Amino acid sequence: MIISTIASHSSLQILMGAKREGFRTRLYVKPNRKAFYSSIPPVDEIVVTENMREVLGDDGIVVPHGSFVAYLGIEAIEKANTKFFGNKRFLKWETSFELQDRVLKKAGIPTVEVIEPEEAKPDELYFVRLEGPRGGSGHFLAYGYELEEKIKGLSEPYRIERFTDGVYLYVHFFYSPILNRLELFGVDERLVIADANKRRPFRTLPYTIAGNKAVALRESLIPVLYDYGLAFVKAMEELEPPGIIGPFALHFAYDGEFRCIGFASRIDGGSNAKHWYSALYWERPMLMGERIAREIKLALEEDRLEEVVT
Amino acid sequence: MIISTIASHSSLQILMGAKREGFRTRLYVKPNRKAFYSSIPPVDEIVVTENMREVLGDDGIVVPHGSFVAYLGIEAIEKANTKFFGNKRFLKWETSFELQDRVLKKAGIPTVEVIEPEEAKPDELYFVRLEGPRGGSGHFLAYGYELEEKIKGLSEPYRIERFTDGVYLYVHFFYSPILNRLELFGVDERLVIADANKRRPFRTLPYTIAGNKAVALRESLIPVLYDYGLAFVKAMEELEPPGIIGPFALHFAYDGEFRCIGFASRIDGGSNAKHWYSALYWERPMLMGERIAREIKLALEEDRLEEVVT
Amino acid sequence: MIISTIASHSSLQILMGAKREGFRTRLYVKPNRKAFYSSIPPVDEIVVTENMREVLGDDGIVVPHGSFVAYLGIEAIEKANTKFFGNKRFLKWETSFELQDRVLKKAGIPTVEVIEPEEAKPDELYFVRLEGPRGGSGHFLAYGYELEEKIKGLSEPYRIERFTDGVYLYVHFFYSPILNRLELFGVDERLVIADANKRRPFRTLPYTIAGNKAVALRESLIPVLYDYGLAFVKAMEELEPPGIIGPFALHFAYDGEFRCIGFASRIDGGSNAKHWYSALYWERPMLMGERIAREIKLALEEDRLEEVVT
Repeated sequence: MIISTIASHSSLQILMGAKREGFRTRLYVKPNRKAFYSSIPPVDEIVVTENMREVLGDDGIVVPHGSFVAYLGIEAIEKANTKFFGNKRFLKWETSFELQDRVLKKAGIPTVEVIEPEEAKPDELYFVRLEGPRGGSGHFLAYGYELEEKIKGLSEPYRIERFTDGVYLYVHFFYSPILNRLELFGVDERLVIADANKRRPFRTLPYTIAGNKAVALRESLIPVLYDYGLAFVKAMEELEPPGIIGPFALHFAYDGEFRCIGFASRIDGGSNAKHWYSALYWERPMLMGERIAREIKLALEEDRLEEVVT
Repeated sequence: MIISTIASHSSLQILMGAKREGFRTRLYVKPNRKAFYSSIPPVDEIVVTENMREVLGDDGIVVPHGSFVAYLGIEAIEKANTKFFGNKRFLKWETSFELQDRVLKKAGIPTVEVIEPEEAKPDELYFVRLEGPRGGSGHFLAYGYELEEKIKGLSEPYRIERFTDGVYLYVHFFYSPILNRLELFGVDERLVIADANKRRPFRTLPYTIAGNKAVALRESLIPVLYDYGLAFVKAMEELEPPGIIGPFALHFAYDGEFRCIGFASRIDGGSNAKHWYSALYWERPMLMGERIAREIKLALEEDRLEEVVT
Repeated sequence: MIISTIASHSSLQILMGAKREGFRTRLYVKPNRKAFYSSIPPVDEIVVTENMREVLGDDGIVVPHGSFVAYLGIEAIEKANTKFFGNKRFLKWETSFELQDRVLKKAGIPTVEVIEPEEAKPDELYFVRLEGPRGGSGHFLAYGYELEEKIKGLSEPYRIERFTDGVYLYVHFFYSPILNRLELFGVDERLVIADANKRRPFRTLPYTIAGNKAVALRESLIPVLYDYGLAFVKAMEELEPPGIIGPFALHFAYDGEFRCIGFASRIDGGSNAKHWYSALYWERPMLMGERIAREIKLALEEDRLEEVVT
């Protein structure tokens, strides 16, 4: 059995996990990224191509990640006959404000407050968020008095959030249909270019993500996040049957209370930052990519593969 | 043999470590936290109760952590007949300025400078620290000119420290009476809500801890910290015989020199951030919770349990 | 066979790695650091001395690190008959602007822009960098209008860089002549005293390094960094035959583009922050110190030791 993916985002942990669980691996790589990806042992077969859509003709199990929608488009993914790990109809839920709001509301997870431009107060801070996952780029911070000027040029859907004076935490979950269990894998903090402000007088800088850093969450905060995770799984089960299969992440602002700012409806790049919580379930720390391969193996052993691929 | 604790703070690593060392585990959990704690395999027995004091009737070895004093009170812990891992009379030493100062002075560990309100200069920054461990909440930063106004409303004991322009490092130690050895396990940095300032124009924000991040300390700084750890162990041995058994942490401001800002007289929540220094002693990285279970096992094997429980 | 080094910088991982690969270890330690280093199991032989130059008479394989040039001087190292792991003539390349520029230019790696004092604009930020590796100390941030005043007192070679509003990433590589392979081991962010600004109104503070924090780099950024690593190895092969043997690090500012700010021509202290990328090559995460010992072992097994020592 072959596990296949596209070279980017979280493919390293997907490949490494697949090898560790005994699968062969196949990777679709753009020519300018070939040197690195051809140098690492967990890649069994490498397909060097400019056209990432070739993965849609793959005959293995394709593991999608955060670059899939950008490279292939939702429609092509949903129409493809390829075997995707997970519920491929879940992928679109992170791509629009409307879908995001629907599931978060149904799950009862508190969210950041969204305001209309005319409600903004001149001296307060706001966060302008563009629609869809975009690695942080495009979003920006602005005082109320700057808003009109700054949003004038936007050609994409956006919304204005009351800025939360707190830390931003990204919580990684895995829902296993085979074990009927939700696992909390870890938490990360994004490293964004705007963090440059920790060493200079403040200046508005891009929120583009450069990397992720593991955070050991204060343990007293975990149970409520786990409850949110359970509620999210339950809501998606009704909204997009059969619901979530595998990894997802909930994104929060925390200023003493958690307020959701979005989610990833697939493996989140922040799971590249290794955490030990997975050892609670699996005796040793495991990356999310390995967890995916483990679920496929468990499914195969019980002849239930159709429950984890779509 | 059963190892028991209360669900919070660092209970995940305590439970996981206990299982790994071959013990049974028992966990006292509040009803609103049941979903998470009942989902993780390392919990053998779960006692769901609003009353955490039930742990004082436990017949196993109870491992205290940072939530114990808050939930049970020092007096109840000291009077209980329960077997506590560690020297339970050490627990109170972190709870008052007076006790903190006594041991730090005896150990010769430099501390941040404490000033009287009238010594404050208007344009300098000060840190107002409330007494006792409190997860960072309540403390605040203030300029001298703001101090009078800001401390007016305080109803709890506090003190005013000269603010150190530096980084804050929390150093985790384990003292083993069985091996007669002090082990340096790792270092963390707190993630506090006030860190939000790295992405916004400065504003006074709470110091409430949201999580912990592992820091690989510059190696040249380690020997002096280890010497402070040794001196602290020696001082406590005289002040509260038989002295320290197991985990503690020293907290420092570092601006080129280390100045102690406090300590944890039990496992510190920052040890939830995994570090590899423990592999120096144990060949593979080990969480502090596992180290505790290992000490109990070593003590049982040598029939010396009474040296590690009180 | 004995592996020897000086107690500081990255000696803990060097010693631990040597033991894990089956070597004996010897450590040269200053008396004031004896308590810590004599307490850890991976040290087989300890030489307590004020004179670190004694390592130059060692009869084992000496693994140099970032404290060697400071303690011993380039000249003494190059003249010594001691067996050094790596190409000891590579060590000097990080010590001067002229050598740094030569190799970075040859490798085609983009660098931060260096300006002349008279080019500075009053309201822009600049970074004044002193020559040579120095653990971050001495460098400083300044507005153009402050530059003249601030550089007046400098007695060491320096240069003025256009300040990059971004994050600073340190990328750790290992080049193996035995396997003829470049391995990307991980990425860290420095924790410097100036980071204190994330919790206070901005103030110019020292860039002295206190520690390192692991960063999981956004995966899409890795291939270009790997290409820079390959180009660097190739350039050094021509400039200082036989070229790089073992660990080095490239240091970058990243504001959407990578611009090199320097490098470490030996194991970099940032590799003390553990990362999992090494598991791509070696099935489990390995610290750089262990990778060094592995290379020596591989060389010994193939009777090719002379290819990895000079």
